[in-house]
Amino acid sequence: MLQGKHPQRVLLFAALDGRTERCACGRLAEAHPIVPPHERCRLIGCTRREFITRVGQAGGFSAAFLAMQSLGLAPVSTARAQTVSAAPNIGKGTSVVILGGGIAGLVAAYELRSLGYSVTALEVRERPGGRNYTVRPGDTITLSDGSKQQCAWEPTHYQNFGPARLPSIHPTILGYCRKLGVNLQVEVNSTRSSYLQNDAANGGRPVIQRRVVNDTRGHVSELLMKSVQGGALDQDLSAQDRERMLAFLRIYGPLDEAGKYKGSDRAGYTRTAGAGDETGVLEQPIDMHTLLDENFWQGMLFDEQFDMQATMFQPVGGMDRIPYAFAKALGDTVTYGAAVTEIRKSGKGVKIGYKLKGQAKSMEADFCICAMPLTILKKTPNDLNAPYKKVIEECTYSHSYKVAWESRRFWEQDYNIYGGLEFVSTGCSPIWFPSAGLFSPRGVLVSGYTEERDTPFQTMSLPAKFEESRKSIERLHPGHGKELQKPMYVGWGRMEHNEGSWISSYAPDQNHAPGMSLTRQTGQARSALNARTETNPNYEVLIQPDGPIYFAGDHVSHIVGWQEGAALSSLRAIQMISDVVKSKQA
Amino acid sequence: MLQGKHPQRVLLFAALDGRTERCACGRLAEAHPIVPPHERCRLIGCTRREFITRVGQAGGFSAAFLAMQSLGLAPVSTARAQTVSAAPNIGKGTSVVILGGGIAGLVAAYELRSLGYSVTALEVRERPGGRNYTVRPGDTITLSDGSKQQCAWEPTHYQNFGPARLPSIHPTILGYCRKLGVNLQVEVNSTRSSYLQNDAANGGRPVIQRRVVNDTRGHVSELLMKSVQGGALDQDLSAQDRERMLAFLRIYGPLDEAGKYKGSDRAGYTRTAGAGDETGVLEQPIDMHTLLDENFWQGMLFDEQFDMQATMFQPVGGMDRIPYAFAKALGDTVTYGAAVTEIRKSGKGVKIGYKLKGQAKSMEADFCICAMPLTILKKTPNDLNAPYKKVIEECTYSHSYKVAWESRRFWEQDYNIYGGLEFVSTGCSPIWFPSAGLFSPRGVLVSGYTEERDTPFQTMSLPAKFEESRKSIERLHPGHGKELQKPMYVGWGRMEHNEGSWISSYAPDQNHAPGMSLTRQTGQARSALNARTETNPNYEVLIQPDGPIYFAGDHVSHIVGWQEGAALSSLRAIQMISDVVKSKQA
Repeated sequence: MLQGKHPQRVLLFAALDGRTERCACGRLAEAHPIVPPHERCRLIGCTRREFITRVGQAGGFSAAFLAMQSLGLAPVSTARAQTVSAAPNIGKGTSVVILGGGIAGLVAAYELRSLGYSVTALEVRERPGGRNYTVRPGDTITLSDGSKQQCAWEPTHYQNFGPARLPSIHPTILGYCRKLGVNLQVEVNSTRSSYLQNDAANGGRPVIQRRVVNDTRGHVSELLMKSVQGGALDQDLSAQDRERMLAFLRIYGPLDEAGKYKGSDRAGYTRTAGAGDETGVLEQPIDMHTLLDENFWQGMLFDEQFDMQATMFQPVGGMDRIPYAFAKALGDTVTYGAAVTEIRKSGKGVKIGYKLKGQAKSMEADFCICAMPLTILKKTPNDLNAPYKKVIEECTYSHSYKVAWESRRFWEQDYNIYGGLEFVSTGCSPIWFPSAGLFSPRGVLVSGYTEERDTPFQTMSLPAKFEESRKSIERLHPGHGKELQKPMYVGWGRMEHNEGSWISSYAPDQNHAPGMSLTRQTGQARSALNARTETNPNYEVLIQPDGPIYFAGDHVSHIVGWQEGAALSSLRAIQMISDVVKSKQA
Repeated sequence: MLQGKHPQRVLLFAALDGRTERCACGRLAEAHPIVPPHERCRLIGCTRREFITRVGQAGGFSAAFLAMQSLGLAPVSTARAQTVSAAPNIGKGTSVVILGGGIAGLVAAYELRSLGYSVTALEVRERPGGRNYTVRPGDTITLSDGSKQQCAWEPTHYQNFGPARLPSIHPTILGYCRKLGVNLQVEVNSTRSSYLQNDAANGGRPVIQRRVVNDTRGHVSELLMKSVQGGALDQDLSAQDRERMLAFLRIYGPLDEAGKYKGSDRAGYTRTAGAGDETGVLEQPIDMHTLLDENFWQGMLFDEQFDMQATMFQPVGGMDRIPYAFAKALGDTVTYGAAVTEIRKSGKGVKIGYKLKGQAKSMEADFCICAMPLTILKKTPNDLNAPYKKVIEECTYSHSYKVAWESRRFWEQDYNIYGGLEFVSTGCSPIWFPSAGLFSPRGVLVSGYTEERDTPFQTMSLPAKFEESRKSIERLHPGHGKELQKPMYVGWGRMEHNEGSWISSYAPDQNHAPGMSLTRQTGQARSALNARTETNPNYEVLIQPDGPIYFAGDHVSHIVGWQEGAALSSLRAIQMISDVVKSKQA
């Protein structure tokens, strides 16, 4: 068949994965008989090495490269959003009830519907999105103690108090934005013009990130240059690599001919170059002793985290454009104002009790996807088996908060800072400048976005919190604290129906992943679990269904605190449910 | 007076520079009598150190900080756009002719008009902007040999063949965008998801920038850690700093407890973490030997250049929105299609001969701002004095080019690359992905933007150039070269009325500024002179007027190849002219 017609090319085509539109023979991939990706190696019947060698002989480097990509031996795309592999309409005749209308619940409802399932999602609030929560003028923030804050910002202003950025390496949630027509714009997550500050270093004076990052590299290069030249690393470097290393460090620093770091334009100017006789004057390097301050290391490495890139995305108009786009597509599949009161296993599958406008109701379904926070599930009477109850009992949630203010854009107008974050070592941190409405006169900035659980900040009154928040601006940009107006606070530990921002540990003995301490100290607790390459017995329980009940949410993923994790957890639950349905149909 | 009313605060107010709206006493700065900034020190009558100490005593750290800022001893704003200091209507009764309607000429016309001068700008083309040139569907690119390329891209596509990004540290041109209502959007100038490639390294396989940047830091940290632990730097570090350095390197690398670099999430994953049991698998570090490849050093430091930040700006719809906004404001102040034929000094000042629609014309004015490229000025009969003729004779211009293609956005859809640049060591470089229309199905990317003067590329036919350009995509993204369609080429050395992209040297013996070799090798020749902290005798000539003739353009600035330099050069020329007018009026 195909092999006969294209004796060499079948190999090439077999090497193409789904994302390549065209076979090396020039025909569209769709024009070829489909070779399921996982059958590649079986079809070819040779070892990986033999395969690559044969492809290389047949088609040269490019072809060999494609083959390596498809076998995971060369850089591959991670752009393709994950999907459920199931027959169309597999869900026909099967019902699923979804608990929670956050991102996990909405994705579950959307995908289950498209597979023909009969779906109902119960959401306790009158809006979709859960922690995906955008506050606009006229909105009221109600804390769990009943206290209220009314938003009186200018009409175009808003703040995403939950998720506020989308990394380019999260293809699933970006794919939903594309599919649902949610317009995205760049979210500037880092700028070298922003400041870092530590009361205990540099006399408390803020330092521009540009200098910290580049002077640090300069000093490190100078010290390594000296070591290499002094022969300290002769055992580690070949004679050739030694020379290449010296050449490299001269650029990397950059270092002068004598191997000294004397500053560079990367660290900026005390006087920028201009027209005519206005030559630039370079900043003098900050000494290494000052830079050896822990606060400075952390802030300067922030945008190197895998999911914290310098440029990210945000929906135009607010992050809640995503849940509202789902809600529009889902219509009355989602029941709002429905508070789940009990979760029971029944003959059919599950029986869910809930309260709707004061009335007790119940419904049965074949399956349940439970996408509620575990903090809330814990308080909901349920029939879960003991191991699940244990996980829910033992896990801990973070209480992350944000304080947002309306202000003249002094950071843009006076400091050339457009978006990005700043860090202080004491008090509310980080500062997060808006990427929406760049260049407009006023905007909303965040001063303080971190964990408040078990900190003195947690028990402060709102006015005291706001003064703490204002202080951070004053530390970084003296004279500008007084420009901050109309503060708003959301602490997720104090939000009814959430009682936590994200899971911080699954069990008391949890092994934290590499990078955790770094991300925590940069005020980014929610990234804590993203580097997870290990797992934990309690987590292992949660990712398996308890009979007809499947768990979803970012806490059922290794991408905690991100919408991508929530979406992927639901796709996984649907895959498992569909596999069960398929096995029953067979 | 003021001192009497606010005994301490006069010092504080004196310390405020113009960009601070409010005095430390709480009153708006405007409510105080104006203290001209340059009179600060005279007014205060004390040394800087005394001044800061006194301010600190009176107002604490914040006040002292503000004082230090105002004296240039602490980080200061560079956000404020430069302006001309002259009496309103100083230009009344004085005429100025401007040669050239690029950014320098347009800024000159705009500012002179606002000062009451009688202004005419002569622009040879039928459009404003000069090198600020955006090509859209339906446009024709005509090279100086008469060959034509018709643009047949999709309706919303465009390419900025001249300037294509605005740094946040260029407040003057950003200020004009604000003033003229030019909407800006973020231009993503760097992403860690982009690739670097060198035929001679890593078997020619491209490497993702995320790995190059972070694995390099890791290896450097490991080597330095070893040196410090081995005592090689005991003479350079105090015992305390030694310990702090070791702690720092553990995070900076990051290194494991044994001081080894074993990779990190900063360098990315071979398998990204997902839901359920999908743990992430970290990339294995690239070995240092491979990373010691010159091509990789250069690309990874690109976005650390002062004017090449990770996030920059671009006008929505094309860079030429800037000159067209000027043109709209200027109306018939600009005469289009006017080719300057001679530049003479006259009794009045200057006499300019020009050809308009085939007709020879001439006009006289008190002053002339010559904002033509020196390549064109050189060929225009003129009365310039010998030193000026010598400069114009001896200078050299770069011949930078861009090749742009329309394509499916494979870089976004298959590689998570949204904007940013990629570099190859051989062939057309860099690749520049569009920041306009992110997430749309197709877009225009650049493959090749560098100097072609005296290179084999220069003499190639257009089809040969295009195949060279396509090869770079194939090197970086095998299989995707064939997706490129409808190429367009602009080589500024081959554009009539320019004959060069920007000045590359003022004289044969020119001292190149620090950073030049770096920027050149990253394909960014136009940044070559930006780090200029030194100057050159020929340049010194050009920045002074030749009688009534003043020179403007980015070549009369230390910010060569940037619109900011062009704008500043015109403001400077207007300042000089206005000072002459003022001295005559006095």
